Amino acid sequence: MAISSFLKRASSYLHGHPACFKALVLVTLSSGSLVAYSDSQSETDKVSLDLNQKEQKKKKVVVLGTGWAGTSFLKDIHVSSYDVQVISPRNYFAFTPLLPSVTCGTVEARSIVEPVRNIIKKRNGEIQFFEAECVKIDAANNKVLCRSNLDQNLGGNGEFSLEYDYLVIAVGAQVNTFDTPGVRENCHFLKEVEDAQKLRDSVIDSFEKAVLPGLSEEERKASLHFVIVGGGPTGVEFAAELHDFIQEDLVAIYPMVKDLVRITLIQSGDHILNTFDDRISSFAEQKFQRDGIEVCTGCRVLGVSEKSLSVKVKSQGEIYSIPHGLVVWSTGVGTRPLVRDFMEQVGQGDRRILATNEWLRVKGSENVYALGDCATIDQRKIMEDILSIFKAADTDNSGTLTVSEFEDVVDDILIRYPQVELYLKSKHLMDVTDLLRDPEGNERESVDIEEFKSVLCLVDSKTKSLPATAQVAAQQGTYLSKCFNRRQQCQEHPEGPRRFSGSGQHHFRPFRYFTFSLCLSYFIMGIIDELARSIQICICICYLSSPINWFHLMWPKRYKHFGKFAPLGGEQAAAELPGDWVSMGHSTQWLWYSVYASKQVSWRTRVLVVSDWARRFVFGRDSSRI
Amino acid sequence: MAISSFLKRASSYLHGHPACFKALVLVTLSSGSLVAYSDSQSETDKVSLDLNQKEQKKKKVVVLGTGWAGTSFLKDIHVSSYDVQVISPRNYFAFTPLLPSVTCGTVEARSIVEPVRNIIKKRNGEIQFFEAECVKIDAANNKVLCRSNLDQNLGGNGEFSLEYDYLVIAVGAQVNTFDTPGVRENCHFLKEVEDAQKLRDSVIDSFEKAVLPGLSEEERKASLHFVIVGGGPTGVEFAAELHDFIQEDLVAIYPMVKDLVRITLIQSGDHILNTFDDRISSFAEQKFQRDGIEVCTGCRVLGVSEKSLSVKVKSQGEIYSIPHGLVVWSTGVGTRPLVRDFMEQVGQGDRRILATNEWLRVKGSENVYALGDCATIDQRKIMEDILSIFKAADTDNSGTLTVSEFEDVVDDILIRYPQVELYLKSKHLMDVTDLLRDPEGNERESVDIEEFKSVLCLVDSKTKSLPATAQVAAQQGTYLSKCFNRRQQCQEHPEGPRRFSGSGQHHFRPFRYFTFSLCLSYFIMGIIDELARSIQICICICYLSSPINWFHLMWPKRYKHFGKFAPLGGEQAAAELPGDWVSMGHSTQWLWYSVYASKQVSWRTRVLVVSDWARRFVFGRDSSRI
Repeated sequence: MAISSFLKRASSYLHGHPACFKALVLVTLSSGSLVAYSDSQSETDKVSLDLNQKEQKKKKVVVLGTGWAGTSFLKDIHVSSYDVQVISPRNYFAFTPLLPSVTCGTVEARSIVEPVRNIIKKRNGEIQFFEAECVKIDAANNKVLCRSNLDQNLGGNGEFSLEYDYLVIAVGAQVNTFDTPGVRENCHFLKEVEDAQKLRDSVIDSFEKAVLPGLSEEERKASLHFVIVGGGPTGVEFAAELHDFIQEDLVAIYPMVKDLVRITLIQSGDHILNTFDDRISSFAEQKFQRDGIEVCTGCRVLGVSEKSLSVKVKSQGEIYSIPHGLVVWSTGVGTRPLVRDFMEQVGQGDRRILATNEWLRVKGSENVYALGDCATIDQRKIMEDILSIFKAADTDNSGTLTVSEFEDVVDDILIRYPQVELYLKSKHLMDVTDLLRDPEGNERESVDIEEFKSVLCLVDSKTKSLPATAQVAAQQGTYLSKCFNRRQQCQEHPEGPRRFSGSGQHHFRPFRYFTFSLCLSYFIMGIIDELARSIQICICICYLSSPINWFHLMWPKRYKHFGKFAPLGGEQAAAELPGDWVSMGHSTQWLWYSVYASKQVSWRTRVLVVSDWARRFVFGRDSSRI
Repeated sequence: MAISSFLKRASSYLHGHPACFKALVLVTLSSGSLVAYSDSQSETDKVSLDLNQKEQKKKKVVVLGTGWAGTSFLKDIHVSSYDVQVISPRNYFAFTPLLPSVTCGTVEARSIVEPVRNIIKKRNGEIQFFEAECVKIDAANNKVLCRSNLDQNLGGNGEFSLEYDYLVIAVGAQVNTFDTPGVRENCHFLKEVEDAQKLRDSVIDSFEKAVLPGLSEEERKASLHFVIVGGGPTGVEFAAELHDFIQEDLVAIYPMVKDLVRITLIQSGDHILNTFDDRISSFAEQKFQRDGIEVCTGCRVLGVSEKSLSVKVKSQGEIYSIPHGLVVWSTGVGTRPLVRDFMEQVGQGDRRILATNEWLRVKGSENVYALGDCATIDQRKIMEDILSIFKAADTDNSGTLTVSEFEDVVDDILIRYPQVELYLKSKHLMDVTDLLRDPEGNERESVDIEEFKSVLCLVDSKTKSLPATAQVAAQQGTYLSKCFNRRQQCQEHPEGPRRFSGSGQHHFRPFRYFTFSLCLSYFIMGIIDELARSIQICICICYLSSPINWFHLMWPKRYKHFGKFAPLGGEQAAAELPGDWVSMGHSTQWLWYSVYASKQVSWRTRVLVVSDWARRFVFGRDSSRI
């Protein structure tokens, strides 16, 4: 039975292009292994330590949180230079991008978590971990107050405080309900592993409810109406997973109610996946339409009760009440109370989200750093510094800036104000000195301060804030640990851009999101790697040689920053790859498998995740409510 | 790292006898497959139905519970003859013998459960399952009242009632606290999958607690004192699993508290595993002593509070208070309130446990059957029927019974009163007619009623009640479904023993526990099977050819009924095999792996359990608290 179901599933994929697919599977797994191998190699590549630094008293670093940002910071920080203590209410790191897969049992919760102690064990056992929640940051006294979330079996109320020299806040964000009434009480979220486990149980519950005796048809229908609020990548992926779970597994064991199931995706914007390329949005909408997933765009949820939710259709202004069996709320992120309280202390009380400078240091604080979803980088505007820049560049104090004077400072400008580069790209300017041309496009020998201002006045509009994603958080953690490790060295030999409003250089280069991190590592960096080369080429060939209806490769249309995936169910996915490549279809799903397998935090989770996928192919998903 | 740890673990086993072990692994897996294959074949072996029966209106059968008894009943019942409805608060069947493994993550909870709907799907979809709890049996009106355990999202209070023609009670038992104060509030149990999951979390919690800052040494010690009450197979297996979990996995990631850990096993009797052979008891006690697990025999727990438990040492009469971090209570089974209420209705209010006759029908009821842990078979005493037996056997009404007259009824006696056979074995009598010899052992031609009574008066003392095990429950389910399926046929052509107190025969043979079910199927039945033959011989050869210090095979000493296992940790187990073989050591653990793998309810769980074991060997157990 199971074997035949597997063959049935497999045959539908192998149907068209068996050779390509077989090659892809092989290559997918092997490349994952190789990349993982090269990852693990890089871990051992440690910068040699300054001897003086060793002799000094170790500074205390307290890290709050063990998510992407916290964990990647811990992986690289030198325990020989710092006393590191970590606080988190969860003693594990979770590979959150796979949470939607956990909701339907495609992947087990335990396959995507790795104990923090396993991660810090590799760091010579000199990092201390405490399973507790930080309840207050006392910035004035350099202390954090923590409370154990274990039951209070032991003496006291489980509270303790830790002192720090440096504090790293990486506590992540909480769900943003936009103060919609009833959301906290009646909706499911998808932030934590527990959320995903609860959601899985609730989906099964909805089906078990619907087949109980003595219910009306309406009640059965209501119980099987699954509503997802938020058409971002998480909501879309959950909708797709749920659809697959129901159609591939649940319909067979609940045949009596299979025609009553309904999935609705509510999106306030005009399109789902609206942070993705338009082609991906419409591909996803078309796929969902074929699958029978209702997409309600331009709708706002006004409130959620136990049995129904009220929705306002923006264009008509009408309000509908929709009965539901389960609502999943996935609409962006909000600030945690701990961080909100800390923001008041450092004078950021009027901001929506904690701001750091480009070096991830919290604004208004000297020794507190914040990274990941709990903070945002407040990129300095070039117009704020325009006078200092002009003054610094005008070395002969002539009151005008020549092209060569400008060329002397341009590298520092590009590092300090990355929006300049984005502006150049948006204007299709090849060279930064082209900025100095006059409005008609003619070259100028020099510009005065007013002309210089008018040239740069639009640059700041291109300032971009980084998305709240795992990739950004992980890179920030690594960046910060590198800064910590090289603090002494960079104080003596600064390597950042020059200070326009002061003298000398910044100690470090500002944080910059490495846009090619995810996918390009497979396509370019991987190819350069000697061992991986042949396999990566195979991937490329398989990928590019696939027929166009199976793999919609479209060429660059406009500049895009980040590579990102959106699995759409039915073994199809969409991806925006670096260089503005857009890819959709079955092959993208295989690329997704490959990337997600290789990006796992340990070999254990890698093996578990891959075997979970294999198990799902062979036996389907489990519907036991445990 | 992981690979090297695997090699280290593996090498310690392969060290002594690599060839034997390799063969064992291979053979273990293959034999599991083959036995499972032959299992699945037997499912298709359906008795042809009586046409008359089909034409009659289908009788309604309601089954309460989806444990071992309920599930094995459902697997075989003919849906063409009965309308079957199943009620259970859990929509899955759990392979309970592996629960102790789940507590420490050796096996995942999801690997030992199979959705009930998957099991009944194979029965042509004509069995209805409702996820609800039966709250009352209304025996007078042939009704059961059920309440959905899902949240009351839908109309009403989730209650509904079902009518039945036949009711099958297979709800299992609850834990027996012997009314010890504080046990329900402060102890962990090991009856359900949820219990095992909670216990796993609590073990991790105890360690996380113990490493929090600001605790005294005493508090840390208390948190890491694990107490198990009950030295039966479950308690012993949990103690062994916990010891392995701590020594193999937790000590490495909590090195700072490794010397504070203490495991104590409290047993009221003089020895642990006291239902097993003495050699196994002392082997287990010695092993636990070497492992540092404290075994306190002859102790009674008087009460359990949040932080300590008070224990009375029976021999001294003194009472000690012992601080603990976690207590697991595993001391036998008690009756559920539902069954207790039903017992009042059928006049069994003064009994401790629900009694059925030898055909599993509840005493005092015509159409209610009870099987598994919730009931016990009340074996009829031969002395109650002694006059009828004598009268029925004395065909010539001579007032005396000759040997040949006795021989005419002896087969029926043996079937109806299985204690006779046990009595013969205990007296080492080869032939049943030897019973008629006089007290000096001389043959007698005939006996009168008084002599007959004196001959049989000790027989009833050998009456044995069946243990509350998975094997018994499963066999009862299968037996009862066969009776149901052949009801009409056996009414017309009875096949049971003759009725001594009435005329004719009993319709069915009484239930008899198939003592060779577990292990002998591997050693004898398996060998007969054509396909499995060669592999089974390999097992036997490997098993028997192992050196004696590695495999303690001891020959029969006294008669024993059931084959049973007791895993003792450190890849060692003890087993009582049929024919009074006692086996202990590493090889027994491999036999245990083989038996438990093959006895899984589906291929899915079989693959999952085996891969969990493999994962544990390679990566160890996970310590994430999810």
